[in-house]
Amino acid sequence: MTETPTRTPLNTYDKSREWMERANRVIPAGIPGHQGPSEGCYIPQSAFPFFSSRAEGSRFWDADGNEYLDYMCGYGPNVLGYRDADVDAAARAQAAIEDVVTIPSTMLVETAEFMVGQIASADWVFFAKNGGDTTTLAIMTARAATMRKGIVFVDGYYHGVAPWTQKLDYPGVLEEDVAHNVYVPWNDLAAVEQAFAAGGIAAFISTPYMHGNFVDNVLPAEGYWQGVRDLCDKYGVVLIMDDVRAGFRLDLAGSDHFYGIKADLTCYCKAIANGYNISMLGGAESLREAVSTIMYTGSYWMSAVPFAATIATQRKLAELDAPAMFRRIGTTLGEGLVAAGKEFGFDLHVSGEPALFYLRLADDPTLNLHQEWIAEIVQRGVFFTNHHNHFLNASLTDADVNRTIEVAHEAFAVLRERHPGAGA
Amino acid sequence: MTETPTRTPLNTYDKSREWMERANRVIPAGIPGHQGPSEGCYIPQSAFPFFSSRAEGSRFWDADGNEYLDYMCGYGPNVLGYRDADVDAAARAQAAIEDVVTIPSTMLVETAEFMVGQIASADWVFFAKNGGDTTTLAIMTARAATMRKGIVFVDGYYHGVAPWTQKLDYPGVLEEDVAHNVYVPWNDLAAVEQAFAAGGIAAFISTPYMHGNFVDNVLPAEGYWQGVRDLCDKYGVVLIMDDVRAGFRLDLAGSDHFYGIKADLTCYCKAIANGYNISMLGGAESLREAVSTIMYTGSYWMSAVPFAATIATQRKLAELDAPAMFRRIGTTLGEGLVAAGKEFGFDLHVSGEPALFYLRLADDPTLNLHQEWIAEIVQRGVFFTNHHNHFLNASLTDADVNRTIEVAHEAFAVLRERHPGAGA
Repeated sequence: MTETPTRTPLNTYDKSREWMERANRVIPAGIPGHQGPSEGCYIPQSAFPFFSSRAEGSRFWDADGNEYLDYMCGYGPNVLGYRDADVDAAARAQAAIEDVVTIPSTMLVETAEFMVGQIASADWVFFAKNGGDTTTLAIMTARAATMRKGIVFVDGYYHGVAPWTQKLDYPGVLEEDVAHNVYVPWNDLAAVEQAFAAGGIAAFISTPYMHGNFVDNVLPAEGYWQGVRDLCDKYGVVLIMDDVRAGFRLDLAGSDHFYGIKADLTCYCKAIANGYNISMLGGAESLREAVSTIMYTGSYWMSAVPFAATIATQRKLAELDAPAMFRRIGTTLGEGLVAAGKEFGFDLHVSGEPALFYLRLADDPTLNLHQEWIAEIVQRGVFFTNHHNHFLNASLTDADVNRTIEVAHEAFAVLRERHPGAGA
Repeated sequence: MTETPTRTPLNTYDKSREWMERANRVIPAGIPGHQGPSEGCYIPQSAFPFFSSRAEGSRFWDADGNEYLDYMCGYGPNVLGYRDADVDAAARAQAAIEDVVTIPSTMLVETAEFMVGQIASADWVFFAKNGGDTTTLAIMTARAATMRKGIVFVDGYYHGVAPWTQKLDYPGVLEEDVAHNVYVPWNDLAAVEQAFAAGGIAAFISTPYMHGNFVDNVLPAEGYWQGVRDLCDKYGVVLIMDDVRAGFRLDLAGSDHFYGIKADLTCYCKAIANGYNISMLGGAESLREAVSTIMYTGSYWMSAVPFAATIATQRKLAELDAPAMFRRIGTTLGEGLVAAGKEFGFDLHVSGEPALFYLRLADDPTLNLHQEWIAEIVQRGVFFTNHHNHFLNASLTDADVNRTIEVAHEAFAVLRERHPGAGA
C-alpha cells in the first residue's frame, strides 16, 4: 500500500485522554449522556477526541489543539456557527440589563410575541430549558385535555429522558412509567388508526420525519402527515410534533408547516438560540386552557439572556434564509460524498433531510466498514459521528464542503487499500 | 387617620399591567409557574408588579421604573447580587472561548473537580439544567440501585414538577405516576421507620429542613437527621437531600453537612451559579455505578458558560463566607421585623433558617392581615412575598436591612390605623 504524499496527517489525542482520566474520577462515566464516548456514536473510541478547548464558526479545536470542521453542531444547537457575533452581542446586551430576576423580564413577552408570529401552528408559547421539559408538558397537557392516558409513539422515537419516554428494561424505569405507551411503525397510517380505534389515546407524538439513530432516516410518505392530522381530528387525539432536533433547520415556521400540516403542540429546543439554554412548547388555541392548568415551572425558565439570544438567532436565520442554505449545502455535500464513495467502489447511503443528513456505508451490514470510514474522516479533522444524524450550520462555506468531500475521498482511498475486496 | 409626612409614596403599576395584557395573548396564564401572579404568593395582585426591566446588586426595577430591595432573588438564584461583576466576567471570558460544543469543554472536568472538592458528601457530580432534572435522576438511581420502587416524601415537599413529584388530583398526572409515593410528617422518625419497615422503599427524599409554602417553616429536631441516616442504613434506603432551595445559603459543603450527616445523593440548582442556568446532582461512591447505567442527557447539559459561572460564584461565596453573612443579616432582619410588629401590637412569626426566612403575621388565622401587611411593604419598594420563604443575597448591606425594617415599620403603622382592634 502506497500513501499519496498529499494525505492529511492523523490526529492524536493524548491530552483528551488525560482529561478523560480526570473526568472518570469525578463524573460517572466520565462524560455522561449522548456526548460521551461510551455512546455508540464513538466507535472505535480511539479515533475520536473527547474534550473541546475552543470553538468558532463551523469549527472547534479539541484539547490537543486538533481542528475540526464540525458536522454535529453540539448535537444541534449551533445553527449559525459557534460564537455568532450578532447573537452573542444581543446576549451580552441583555446580560448588562438583567437575566434571572424575581419577576420576569419584559423580554419574556417580546420573545413570546416574536415566536408566536413565526411559528405557523403556535397561538401561544411556553418557555423552559430542556427539550424534554416540553415533551413532558405536551403529554401532560394532552392527558389533561382529553382525560385519556395513552400515548402513541413511532418506532425510532427519542423524546428526551423522562421515565415515560424510556423503555421498560432501562435502569431506573418502572412498568408504571411506560404502562400507557403504544408503539406504531413510521409511515404506517393503518397502524395509527388501529391504535387510535382501540381507544384511550390522549396523544400521538412524533418527530417530523424518522431521524432515529443506527438506522437510515426516512422521510414522510406522500400524504402521511395529512393522514395523521385527519386521524387525530377523527379520534380527538392531540398531535404533538417533537421538533427538538429538526426545528429551525427545515422551516422557520416549524417542521409541521414544512410538511403541510398544523400540529396541536410543537416542541422546540436545540437550534432555537444558537446554544443559549432555552426550549419552547408552541400550541393551538384549543389547548391554551388545558396547558394553563398544569403545574409546571423551573428555576431558570424566565432567564432573559436566552430570550434575547432567541430573537437574535431567529432573525438572522430568516435574513440568511438558512433552511434554503442548508438544503443547498446538504444536497451538494451528500452528492459529493456518494460520488467519492462510488469512485472507490463503495455504496454510501445518505438519508433524511439534507440539513440533518444521515450516513451509512452499505457495503458491510455489520457497519464495521462504515465505522472505519468515519474514523478515518474524524482523525483527519472533519467531525462526523457513526450512527446519528448530522447537523449543518449557517457559517459553513462552499470551501468547507469541498474540503469535507476531499477528506471523505482520502478516507475511501484508505478503506480501498485496506480492504481490496470490500463492497461492490 | 393621619399620615406622617415621611411616609413612602406607594408604587403604581400601569406599565406592568400593559405588559401583562400582551403576555396574556401569547403565553398561557400570562406568566406561567411560580413567578406568575396567579400563584398564591401575589395576593392581592394589585399590590405587586409583574414585569422587571433592570436588575443590579440587591435591587431590581419593574416595568414602571419602581425600585425594589429584593428578598426573593429570582426565587433563589441571585445569591451574590444581580449582575455580579466577578461572575459575569468569568462567564464572558468563557463565552469568548466556547459554550455548547459537540464534545464537552474541558470546563466540565474543572467544574466537576471543583465541586467534588467542595461538597462534603459528593464523590462525583452530574450536571443538568433544572433542579427537577436532578431529583428525577436521583430517584431513578435509587430505584436502579435497590431494585425497589417506593419513594418516601415528607409533607410540605416540593421536588420539581415531574409527574412523580405531583399529586394525583393535579391536571395531567396519572395514578401510575404517583403509585409508589409514601408520605410521612416532618420530624417524625417513627413514621419514617414505619414506612421503611413496610418494605419496597428505594429512597427517602427531603429538603434539609421543612421550608414549605403557606406554612411556618420548621427546622430539624435534635437528632432527626442522624436518625434518618441510621434508618436509611438499616433498611438499605437511599437518602436523597433536595438542596435546590437551601443549597449554598446554609453551608457551601451542602446542607446535609450543615446538619451533620452525609446524604447519599444531593440535588443542587438555584444558587449554584448566581443565575446562570445549571443544576447538579452530587453522590456517594456507592451509587456511582448505578447512576452510570441511567439513560439521562440533555441538549445544554455540557454548556461551558454556566460551568465557568459556577466556579466563580462558589469561589466568591467562600471568600465572603456568605453563609455566615446570611445568618447574621437574616437574624438582624428577622429581629428587626418582629420588634417593628411588637411596637404596633402585632405578633410576627419568623421561621426557618435566617438565610431563607419565612414570615407570618400570626394575629389573623385567615392570613388576610398578613397579606395586607406584605402588600403595604411591596408597594413601598421592598419585595417580599406572602407565603414563600425569602432569600438573602450577599450584596445586601446593613443600610438595606435598616431600610427594610423602616418600611416594615411604616406598613405596621398603616395596618394599626386601618385595623385599630386587630392583634394582641
